[in-house]
Amino acid sequence: MKFSVILDRPKYEGNIGFIARAMKNFGLEDLIIVGKEDVGEEARSRASHAQDILSDARMVSGIGEVIDDFDLRVATTGIRGESEDKFKRNPFLTPKELKNRLGDKKGNCGLFFGKEDHGLSNDVIESCEIVLSVPTSSDYPILNLSHAVSIVLYELSDIGGSGKNLATRDEIDSVNDRIEELFDDLDYPSFKVRKTKLMLKRIFGRAVLTSREAHSLSGFLRKISEKIKEK
Amino acid sequence: MKFSVILDRPKYEGNIGFIARAMKNFGLEDLIIVGKEDVGEEARSRASHAQDILSDARMVSGIGEVIDDFDLRVATTGIRGESEDKFKRNPFLTPKELKNRLGDKKGNCGLFFGKEDHGLSNDVIESCEIVLSVPTSSDYPILNLSHAVSIVLYELSDIGGSGKNLATRDEIDSVNDRIEELFDDLDYPSFKVRKTKLMLKRIFGRAVLTSREAHSLSGFLRKISEKIKEK
Repeated sequence: MKFSVILDRPKYEGNIGFIARAMKNFGLEDLIIVGKEDVGEEARSRASHAQDILSDARMVSGIGEVIDDFDLRVATTGIRGESEDKFKRNPFLTPKELKNRLGDKKGNCGLFFGKEDHGLSNDVIESCEIVLSVPTSSDYPILNLSHAVSIVLYELSDIGGSGKNLATRDEIDSVNDRIEELFDDLDYPSFKVRKTKLMLKRIFGRAVLTSREAHSLSGFLRKISEKIKEK
Repeated sequence: MKFSVILDRPKYEGNIGFIARAMKNFGLEDLIIVGKEDVGEEARSRASHAQDILSDARMVSGIGEVIDDFDLRVATTGIRGESEDKFKRNPFLTPKELKNRLGDKKGNCGLFFGKEDHGLSNDVIESCEIVLSVPTSSDYPILNLSHAVSIVLYELSDIGGSGKNLATRDEIDSVNDRIEELFDDLDYPSFKVRKTKLMLKRIFGRAVLTSREAHSLSGFLRKISEKIKEK
């Protein structure tokens, strides 16, 4: 697996530097920073011997520029405990659970981290296949951003990296297109459409589909649509 | 298990604050700071909503004041890769391995973290039963102190906490006394004594003895000493 870290409009330079350092500590290279043009002195100071990670970081103005670069998109959140009925952040995986599910796959995985005080936007969370949260005490659940990143990277860094091919972005998008098509064909209650689509995304996301599975799933969903249209 | 974090002469206030926050994030309470009389503004700012951890922190002038407070002492180090022949830091456990070994035990465990640039002194490392190191990239193995603490606490925080009693400090000291006595009775090459004692400490440390085992082991070692003296 190749992991990238995407920071969406980070607020504190210090966190950017500490995150670059943690990436180098755990052998990652690809840092993407959304909403900044360059990094300042404090980031460079905190990065210590990881200056190369900062210099090579990709600076983009909007998250849309990179959202399609990853076979698997993982949204991180410190907010949990919503009702099981809400699929935006539920059910989430812990870093250990994500590691176990990715252990025998290979592909490109984007780890998305939001702004310190607000987290990721709803749009970004909904665009991600998997929601990840570090289990913490209910007394004070919110980790500092750089500490959250380092814990996630620590957990994911000992993945072997050989094994079955993760479904590519195109293959996942094709599954999603089939789902869209299916909902067009169904007389599904309109107020439930968005929620049910998100639920399906979460289910297929947690399953971490292989290429083979994504192909078969697309075929299966197309077959259903064809059958409905036949009538 | 009850875990305490002992910071031996930390250099940066920021790290102290981030560590207090991580402790609260993972449900720990007992922070001991060696070599400081109080903490400053930057520590309080970084601690965010974990002010109580800082206010309740025990400030001690020397590590000797608290070294006997723990049934199990764990030394952390960022320096690895010494030859297997050197028992001071070898073999070390990863956080995951420590968690697995502590999973079915209960008792008091002290997690010792050294100064940012120097780590723990040799004396402290040798006084600890277990050496712990977070696996990192050989390109840049040294984690920032507060990130190392947060990773260790993350890993140890989901231990159940029920199960067999860990051998108490007194019981472990009693095993060590029997080992000392045994070496007095043996005509052991003097240049090997210190190293062999440390090896035994590392072996029994990694085994994470229960109360019952420590008792039986003390009895067994005393029996050997008696047998030698009989001759």
